[in-house]
Amino acid sequence: MSAVPSLRHLLLLRPRLRFFALSTSSSPFLSYAPSHHFSPSSLRVLSSSSSPTLTQEEADEVVGKGSSLIDVNPPRGTRDFPPDDMRLRNWLFQNFREVSRILSFEEVDFPVLESEALFIRKAGEEITQQLYNFEDKGGRRVVLRPEITPSLARLVIKQGKSVSLPLKWFTIGQCWRYERMTRGRRREHYQWNMDIFGVSKVRGEAELIQAIVLLFERLGINSSDVGIRVSSRKVLQAVLQMYAIPENLFTQVCVIVDKLGKITREEIEKELLSLGVSIQAVNGIIEVLSLKSLSKLEEVLGSEEEAVSELKKLFSLAESYGYADWICFDASVVRGLAYYTGIVFEAFDREGKLRAICGGGRYDRLLSTFGSEDIPACGFGFGDAVIVELLKDKGLLPDLAHRVDDIVFPLDEVLDGTASRIASSLRKKGRSVDLVEDKRLKWVFKHAERIGASRLILVGNSEWERGAVRVKNLSTREEFEVKIDELV
Amino acid sequence: MSAVPSLRHLLLLRPRLRFFALSTSSSPFLSYAPSHHFSPSSLRVLSSSSSPTLTQEEADEVVGKGSSLIDVNPPRGTRDFPPDDMRLRNWLFQNFREVSRILSFEEVDFPVLESEALFIRKAGEEITQQLYNFEDKGGRRVVLRPEITPSLARLVIKQGKSVSLPLKWFTIGQCWRYERMTRGRRREHYQWNMDIFGVSKVRGEAELIQAIVLLFERLGINSSDVGIRVSSRKVLQAVLQMYAIPENLFTQVCVIVDKLGKITREEIEKELLSLGVSIQAVNGIIEVLSLKSLSKLEEVLGSEEEAVSELKKLFSLAESYGYADWICFDASVVRGLAYYTGIVFEAFDREGKLRAICGGGRYDRLLSTFGSEDIPACGFGFGDAVIVELLKDKGLLPDLAHRVDDIVFPLDEVLDGTASRIASSLRKKGRSVDLVEDKRLKWVFKHAERIGASRLILVGNSEWERGAVRVKNLSTREEFEVKIDELV
Repeated sequence: MSAVPSLRHLLLLRPRLRFFALSTSSSPFLSYAPSHHFSPSSLRVLSSSSSPTLTQEEADEVVGKGSSLIDVNPPRGTRDFPPDDMRLRNWLFQNFREVSRILSFEEVDFPVLESEALFIRKAGEEITQQLYNFEDKGGRRVVLRPEITPSLARLVIKQGKSVSLPLKWFTIGQCWRYERMTRGRRREHYQWNMDIFGVSKVRGEAELIQAIVLLFERLGINSSDVGIRVSSRKVLQAVLQMYAIPENLFTQVCVIVDKLGKITREEIEKELLSLGVSIQAVNGIIEVLSLKSLSKLEEVLGSEEEAVSELKKLFSLAESYGYADWICFDASVVRGLAYYTGIVFEAFDREGKLRAICGGGRYDRLLSTFGSEDIPACGFGFGDAVIVELLKDKGLLPDLAHRVDDIVFPLDEVLDGTASRIASSLRKKGRSVDLVEDKRLKWVFKHAERIGASRLILVGNSEWERGAVRVKNLSTREEFEVKIDELV
Repeated sequence: MSAVPSLRHLLLLRPRLRFFALSTSSSPFLSYAPSHHFSPSSLRVLSSSSSPTLTQEEADEVVGKGSSLIDVNPPRGTRDFPPDDMRLRNWLFQNFREVSRILSFEEVDFPVLESEALFIRKAGEEITQQLYNFEDKGGRRVVLRPEITPSLARLVIKQGKSVSLPLKWFTIGQCWRYERMTRGRRREHYQWNMDIFGVSKVRGEAELIQAIVLLFERLGINSSDVGIRVSSRKVLQAVLQMYAIPENLFTQVCVIVDKLGKITREEIEKELLSLGVSIQAVNGIIEVLSLKSLSKLEEVLGSEEEAVSELKKLFSLAESYGYADWICFDASVVRGLAYYTGIVFEAFDREGKLRAICGGGRYDRLLSTFGSEDIPACGFGFGDAVIVELLKDKGLLPDLAHRVDDIVFPLDEVLDGTASRIASSLRKKGRSVDLVEDKRLKWVFKHAERIGASRLILVGNSEWERGAVRVKNLSTREEFEVKIDELV
């Protein structure tokens, strides 16, 4: 026996009382006039017990069972991307992608969540001290990645025989850190990475620096705004050898001297001394790191020194590529990552107001720290934060307003089917179409301006009777009657 | 007194013994012939103590201080995107973006990490039972978001007066879940979301469904491959009212009956009975949910019922848009999310082999659960997993090989500056250029095929003396000598 007829019967008999108020139009408090703006600040008043106009019960009904307003901000140190910010981000990423394409790099990606083991290094780097790590429900140590290079290396090892070297990969992804004392600093940023595996010569670094320069040029930045400081970890290596400092301290020394200029010289000295580096060596290191000329470095280290010959080769290639005016030798550049082994570089604003715009270098021995065979490699990371600050400072942020081709607007509710047909047909041709209903014409014109629409297509009764619509070109202000079939 | 001269002095005197082996070329074990493939499996042997050819000490030296090979896989349930997979993902996302543009939606984004509070709902949904949640170091409950809609709602509330309604937003982002019993299921997927705030009429749903259909059409899928089932939660609402089931059980009932077809009818009955729903009501509910025809539903609920009139309006609009053959009424569609209040829909493969391809619906009362004023809203989520399975099944996956314009190859090392100049000049014109060195010509031709290069530019000594290069068109096999200045 079917229950259906009896259901119908029950429905017809039931009192027309609404147990549910799922439709927003059934309560005056819940109704929302679409053309009005919406104010969350007024709601905070409604949800408080001191509301002057509503009883607590009424207020509860409005704001949903007495719940107070949630925190509308994203978690501390993170960002939302409303449309304007998203357009800027997409524009920046599009430039990252385009430069990567021009350099013939292939895009790859990795999970933002990685095994903690991939990032455990004992050199005292800031990046590993601020890991956003935790234990998952299965008891595994995981981390919201602080950087992408270890994931790249992991995938290179995993791909094994299936990849042909050299391998040129880029990626754009979000990276995380957790600082206990946050000082309002962000906990996430996006980073563009370009990496080359299988090229041992400085050609690798020269290609990476060309990519960075091409990116700057595309963004409207020139070499009087920005420079790229270049040095080599082999400079420090040579100095350490000279003082017979054991090899196993090399990485830690690099991480410490990278802080030159960020903490005081006394603090640097103290940290190096506590490692067991002699005061003579400390002075020697700091002396060499102050060099700003390659010929001076050659004078100090000798021309046979790898650090010198590689840097000279890089500067000679830079002349050939045509970006020599962008780069300068600066021995103080060490970079804070433990795994760099050769050339290191960073881009900086020449006014000296901002942190490094990007940084990178050679890391020929990262894979062996993961238990695999080493492959010569180099790469850089380019964040989304400092570059945007710089573009803002220089007035180089592009105008990226929302743009729509057509607005279709039925002047009468009975024409909503016709409006659907017209919108659908234009969309199938690839035009972007906003279909607007239940508004006054005045609102539609304002809206057209706001979303940068090119045409307004008015679907009215009298035109419809002639199988036509009115089309207004919003830049020329011209208006035509166009047969629906002829609309393109 | 400067330490620099004494440093130089020390360097000249020191024995030429290498304490460091940062250069990969200094050890035969570390050297890497760039034209060879790289085998991680052979390394596992090296790192084990049973290595037949090396002592443990030697093996340790090769694989980096005795570390054994790390797990090269990403965390369980997550994916890497090597170039081929990334091209497919980019192609899919590009289609998501293009359809969103055509519908005049604006892109937004949110942090993948959100406050847990945003996702705490008590209706027993699978999505909230599998939260990838944890406590951050500051003691805050956070979560790798399982879905994006609550973040959208949060931003709408936060934007407040600055947004003009209706608001049409889309986003593409990664979502996470944590199942204790993993059954090999993924813990992450990417999801395309399109959402409309401020449209109370079914026009909203009609627009969303057009977007989904346009996407399918762009991907080469037609309405004989895929259908979209449509119903309304107001159908259940009407049935529940009829049986005088209290309003506060509505959401829980929806979440339970959504499992129809996934668990047995007996289990559904048991769960509903334990909620306090009478056996008559259980039977009535299941009876109505079996309806597959809108006229039958109208017969049962009456034509004045909102559920009926809204569904009829949607089907009428579908005719106007031209996608009526894609959609069908199916009362069993309820969807698993707690917050839906009206029309709900899901796309399915007509062969019935796969899970739902995408799903969505109206959620007019989500904002009040966050303590804010409600705004009528609807949206859908479209994952990246099922659609790719379907495209694979139908043979619709596109050919997305790597493509490069030019390979520049110096035939002699002394020409590396010239090769740099040529590559740089072509790149400034926007051409994608791979600069290859230290390979045999045979390798270069194979490589050109692998990366889909259009031209090979050979920089040789004799041509160079004439200020020219040899250019080989790789599709026509034609070869020319071209003056460097005339190369475009």
